Amino acid sequence: MAVVGIGLIGGSFALAGRQAGVLGEVVGVARSERTMLEALHVGAADRTTADPAEAVRDADLIFIATPVAAIPDVFARIAPALPDGCVVTDAGSTKRAILDAAAALPAHVDFVGGHPMAGSERAGVMAARANLFRGRTWLLTPGDASGDAVERLRATIDAIGARVVVVGADDHDRIVARTSHLPHLVAAALAGALGECCSEDDFIGNGLRDTTRIAVGSAEVWREILLTNADDVLAALAEFTAEVERYRDALVSGDAVALTALLEAARACRERMGET
Amino acid sequence: MAVVGIGLIGGSFALAGRQAGVLGEVVGVARSERTMLEALHVGAADRTTADPAEAVRDADLIFIATPVAAIPDVFARIAPALPDGCVVTDAGSTKRAILDAAAALPAHVDFVGGHPMAGSERAGVMAARANLFRGRTWLLTPGDASGDAVERLRATIDAIGARVVVVGADDHDRIVARTSHLPHLVAAALAGALGECCSEDDFIGNGLRDTTRIAVGSAEVWREILLTNADDVLAALAEFTAEVERYRDALVSGDAVALTALLEAARACRERMGET
Repeated sequence: MAVVGIGLIGGSFALAGRQAGVLGEVVGVARSERTMLEALHVGAADRTTADPAEAVRDADLIFIATPVAAIPDVFARIAPALPDGCVVTDAGSTKRAILDAAAALPAHVDFVGGHPMAGSERAGVMAARANLFRGRTWLLTPGDASGDAVERLRATIDAIGARVVVVGADDHDRIVARTSHLPHLVAAALAGALGECCSEDDFIGNGLRDTTRIAVGSAEVWREILLTNADDVLAALAEFTAEVERYRDALVSGDAVALTALLEAARACRERMGET
Repeated sequence: MAVVGIGLIGGSFALAGRQAGVLGEVVGVARSERTMLEALHVGAADRTTADPAEAVRDADLIFIATPVAAIPDVFARIAPALPDGCVVTDAGSTKRAILDAAAALPAHVDFVGGHPMAGSERAGVMAARANLFRGRTWLLTPGDASGDAVERLRATIDAIGARVVVVGADDHDRIVARTSHLPHLVAAALAGALGECCSEDDFIGNGLRDTTRIAVGSAEVWREILLTNADDVLAALAEFTAEVERYRDALVSGDAVALTALLEAARACRERMGET
């Protein structure tokens, strides 16, 4: 198989697949010499290259784990070199734009969109670990891919202990706009709005640290995620700001009943998520 | 000493103080028979009563750990029974309103406002633990209290391993509006706005769980905190919604440069907080 963009996600997939014995030779693709050496060092790849086309030439599974914005370019570079019948997948956080871009791939390969629901504040292949996906959901958006291609990919993902859930690209983007992209925007806006208060160590508790934790994510990665899913994110943001307005109105009017109702509803929503 | 409202905070203070050997007899005050039995069971009190006035009669330290809204009523009930020279303190999350209400206490006692920066999603004296405050900041707003009273209280708080920071009530309320109250409102508004999406288990990751975790806090407790500090919370909320508007504008116009700048600034703010 080939892993194009062998960082935290790509490296963890390779480590997990090798541990499970479901991958043959793994070719890791990275732009920097340092990442290539690190990928070999942690055992995430058997060999490495900076050339995606060279890496995919003999692969039956190609896993694109670059940032979202780089995926269309990877498609263009690997398209001429893809062998017949291989399965191409990705790990991008938005799926509609990527499925559209996958139209550039040749007809003799199958593209199955993927989105593993796992990650870490740490980035890079040195942070990769074989159990990153264990017990986590791995969303697949098959688009026009053949059932056989989906099942082959599913078997590999099952083998590394993740749980495959198949979903349409539109539903995927609409829901993750709310469960992932909006929360990132909100956490970042909160951290940004606090400004100088972020240095008030004496006043900062675990509540604020939890609420803003994801704001440490890469600005480049999240910029692309938000921009490629802008319509759904803006719709989700409108729902959020309407709810914020309800809190504001209750505070302005000193309406304890309305405020309690809002807080109770929020509490019930959060409790449905589990794992407090 | 007397602990009026012997729940998580009051019980943990009593357990810690007893462990450190800096408290004499501890009288726990609770409204329910069950809480009284629990306080005795976990060793947070030597005896219990439902009558605050009876509890404080021989106390040299009175710790009011009820919800914020109940504190003025506790002041009124204990005022006639407070012995000369005792120190009264509290654990309320807003301080200006409480210092104002403390004017109802007799001149022969000292009130020192307090705000331990510690807590738990769990509530009640059964969740109390002696190390809850270890290494945490304990804010004190002395108001008109004597230096001697502040030092006596400081010695007790030092003994349980917390770190005293003295701050004016106005500064306290302004800063915690941003580091604690606004984050709670934002986390709750996010959980509430998600609605049905909170049940989409396949799409919910640790990022969303972190960002909304504090929304499970008691609606009654947080309603009172937000209402008693409404002016500062509304000012902080305006800063937050202005920042959210900047994200919205960047998304609407597809302005990658502006979005990156916002996300980078947020990332820098969050990193200043430490303990990701």
